[in-house]
Amino acid sequence: MSILIKNVLLGDEETDVYIEGNIFKRIGPSLEEEADEIIEGRGQAILPSFFNVHTHAAMTLLRGYADDMELHSWLENYIWPFEQKLTPQDVYWGTKLACLEMIKTGTTFFCDMYWHVREVARAVDEMGMRAALSSAYVDFNDPKRGEVFKKKNIQFFDSPPSTSPRVSFILGPHAIYTVSRDSLIWIRDFARERSLMINIHLAETRKEREECIRIRGCTPVRYLKEIGLLGENLICAHVIWVDDEEIEILKDHGVKIAHVPTSNMKLCSGPFRFNRFLQKGIMVGMGTDGCASNNNLDMMEEMKIASLRAKMTEEDPTAATAQEIFHCATRAGAMIFGINAGEIKEGMVADCILVDLDHPQMVPCHNLISNIVYAANGDVVTTCICDGKLLMRERKVPGEKEILTEVRKRVKDILERL
Amino acid sequence: MSILIKNVLLGDEETDVYIEGNIFKRIGPSLEEEADEIIEGRGQAILPSFFNVHTHAAMTLLRGYADDMELHSWLENYIWPFEQKLTPQDVYWGTKLACLEMIKTGTTFFCDMYWHVREVARAVDEMGMRAALSSAYVDFNDPKRGEVFKKKNIQFFDSPPSTSPRVSFILGPHAIYTVSRDSLIWIRDFARERSLMINIHLAETRKEREECIRIRGCTPVRYLKEIGLLGENLICAHVIWVDDEEIEILKDHGVKIAHVPTSNMKLCSGPFRFNRFLQKGIMVGMGTDGCASNNNLDMMEEMKIASLRAKMTEEDPTAATAQEIFHCATRAGAMIFGINAGEIKEGMVADCILVDLDHPQMVPCHNLISNIVYAANGDVVTTCICDGKLLMRERKVPGEKEILTEVRKRVKDILERL
Repeated sequence: MSILIKNVLLGDEETDVYIEGNIFKRIGPSLEEEADEIIEGRGQAILPSFFNVHTHAAMTLLRGYADDMELHSWLENYIWPFEQKLTPQDVYWGTKLACLEMIKTGTTFFCDMYWHVREVARAVDEMGMRAALSSAYVDFNDPKRGEVFKKKNIQFFDSPPSTSPRVSFILGPHAIYTVSRDSLIWIRDFARERSLMINIHLAETRKEREECIRIRGCTPVRYLKEIGLLGENLICAHVIWVDDEEIEILKDHGVKIAHVPTSNMKLCSGPFRFNRFLQKGIMVGMGTDGCASNNNLDMMEEMKIASLRAKMTEEDPTAATAQEIFHCATRAGAMIFGINAGEIKEGMVADCILVDLDHPQMVPCHNLISNIVYAANGDVVTTCICDGKLLMRERKVPGEKEILTEVRKRVKDILERL
Repeated sequence: MSILIKNVLLGDEETDVYIEGNIFKRIGPSLEEEADEIIEGRGQAILPSFFNVHTHAAMTLLRGYADDMELHSWLENYIWPFEQKLTPQDVYWGTKLACLEMIKTGTTFFCDMYWHVREVARAVDEMGMRAALSSAYVDFNDPKRGEVFKKKNIQFFDSPPSTSPRVSFILGPHAIYTVSRDSLIWIRDFARERSLMINIHLAETRKEREECIRIRGCTPVRYLKEIGLLGENLICAHVIWVDDEEIEILKDHGVKIAHVPTSNMKLCSGPFRFNRFLQKGIMVGMGTDGCASNNNLDMMEEMKIASLRAKMTEEDPTAATAQEIFHCATRAGAMIFGINAGEIKEGMVADCILVDLDHPQMVPCHNLISNIVYAANGDVVTTCICDGKLLMRERKVPGEKEILTEVRKRVKDILERL
C-alpha cells in the first residue's frame, strides 16, 4: 500500500508527501513516485493525527444520558445502572461509534479503559485505528474479587484477543480506592514480568486524596510510590490533587500524565497544574475521557479547553500556548506509548490528517497551529491516515451509516431493559 | 416568500413547520400548505438559531494573529497596530467572513461594536442576518475627541446607513476607562432622546475596578449608577468584577448582561458569576467576543465552555445546566434586543436552524439539548433561516468562496502595510 499526497501545506510550504507501507518515505516538492492512492492536497494542510491518551470509548452510548449532576448521584443512579445492562455486543458497537467519531475528528490512537475488551479490540481492529486497551480492574478491596481479576488477567494476557501491531493491551487498575493494595502489588509485578504499561485514574478528586490520607496515612502519589507502582510504564489520568513534592516524585519515576480538562471541569474535579508539569519536563498527553463526562471525543475542542483552563488556573494568558498544547495532543501522546509518530517527517510512522483550509474558521491563516487549537474543531478534518492506511477520505468513513443505525437500536434496547 | 419544512424533529416529535413571510405560521404534522421552498427535514431537528450578544465581527481578520500574550503587549504591539491599518473595505470583508462563519454555525443575530459601521451594516444587510450595530465610542477623556464623537453620532443617527428592519443601530461607549464622564452623560441623554440601546464593556478586569475606585471613588457599576447610565436599554459585556450589591443594582435597573466565557478565560479576566445572575432573574445572553480573543464565533462551543466555566466557578456540577445555557444563547438573547424570536412557536419570528441528527456527535440522542450544548459544534448545522429567509441550505452559503479569497488577499495587504 502506498499513498501520494500532492501539493499539501506542510508548515509554511506546499509539498508532496509519499507514504509507503506505514512510513513517511519521502517528503518534498514534485514527487513522482507511483502510488496506489493519489490524493490532491491543494487547499489542505497535513498535520500529525491526534493521540487521545485517556478515554472510555464505549461510553458514547451514554452521551447526554445524564448531565449537570452531583458526582455520586450521577454515578449511582444513572451511569452504573446503565453500564450494568451493557452486553459485549453493546460495547462493540459503542466502541465502533467512538472510533467513527475519532477518525472523523482526526484521532488515530486512543488509550482505553473499559469492560469486554475483546469486543473493544475487535472494533478497533476493524476500524483501522491504533489503541492501547485496558480492562477496568476493580476489586473493591475484596480479596475474592481480586483473585478472580488476577486469574482473568493472566488468561487474557496469555492469549490476547488481537495480534494486530496497531493494538496493544495494558493493565487497568481503576483507582486506588477501587483496587486493593494486594491487587496493586500483583499488578506491579505482573506488569514487570510481561513488560506491560499500566493505566490508572489518580488524584482526581479532593475526596480521593483526603480518604487516602485517612486510610493509608499518606497521599495517593506517595501511596503508589510506597507500593512501587510508580514507573515509566505508568500513565495516570487527572492527577489534580498533588503537591509540589508529589509532582517531583512523579517526575523522578518517569510517570506519564493524561490530562483530561473537559471532564475535570464538567465534574468539578479541580485545577490541573499544566504549567508545573510541563516545566518539570513530565510527559503530558491529552485525553477526552468518556462521553458521559465530556460529551464528545474531539481532540481539537479538548486542546482549546485545555489551554483556556491552564491560562485561568495560572492567571496568566501566556500559559499553555497553542504550540505546547498541540505537542501534548500529538507527539507527546505517541511518545508515551512508544509509537514513532506524531510528526510529519521522513522515516516516521504515517499517522496523519489533512485539514480543510477553506473552512471559514481556518481563514485567515496567520498561524496554522493557532487556528487548529483555538478556532477550528474536528470537522475541519477531511482525510485521516493511520499506519499508512486511509481511514477517511473526503470526510467519508466506510460503514458510518450502519454504526449509527446499530447504536440507536441498541440504546433503545438498553433503555427498555433498565 | 414561504418555506415548508417537512418531517423535522421538534422536541420529541416529527412535525412540519410552515413559514410565511418572516413568521412561523403553522406547526403540525402533515401540513399541505403550498410554499416557495420545500425542505425535507427528516434526520434533522429544528431549533431556534443563536443570538450572539457581544462580538467585534470584523476581527475575524485577526484570527490567530496574536495569542498567548499578556493583555497589554497583546493590545499595544499586535491588535491596535493591525487595526490602525484597516480600511473601511477591510472591515466590510472581515464582517462578511464573520457573517459567513455565524450563518454556518447557526447564528442569525449579533450585537457588534467596531469601526466603519456603515460597512458593517452593508455586510450584514447583504448576508441576510440581523444585527444591533454600535460604533466604538472612545474619547480617551479628551474633551475635543468627545466633541468629535458626539457630532459623528448625531450625524450617524440622523441618517443611519441601513433601513433594513433586520439591522438596528445602538450606542457603543467602549468602557468607563476609555470614555469620559462627560461623554457618558451625553450618551445617556442621547439614548433617551432617540430611544437607543447602549452597549458597553463593564467590570472586565480587576484593574478596571481598582482604577475606578482610585479615580472615581467607587466601583464601575456604582459609577454608572451615579451617572444614570444603568437602565433597561443597557447591555454590559463581561461584568466579572462586581460584588453582590452591584448585582442587585444591575437587577434593579433592568440592565442586560453579555456573558463571553471564552474571552474571559483566554485573557484571564476572571470568573463570571453565572449562577448568581440567573438566580437574581437578570437577563443574560451569550457572546463570543471577537476572533482575536476566542478565536471563533461558534455559539455551540461557547455554550459548552460557558457551562464548564460556571460549574468550575461554583464548584458545583449541577450549575449552568444545558437547558439554562441554551436559553441564554437563544431566547434570552432575542428578548434582550426586543426580537420576538428564540423559540419555534406559531406566531414567532422565523429565525431557526436545522441540525444533522446523523452527525456522530449527535448519536445517540438521549437528550437533544445536551447534545447541542455539550457534544456538538456548529458544524452540525445544515440549514439556517433568518427572518423567514434561507441563508444556508445543505451547508452552502452563497458567495462563500469569494469571501474567503477576498479576506486572504486583504490580510496579505494589511500585513504588508504594517
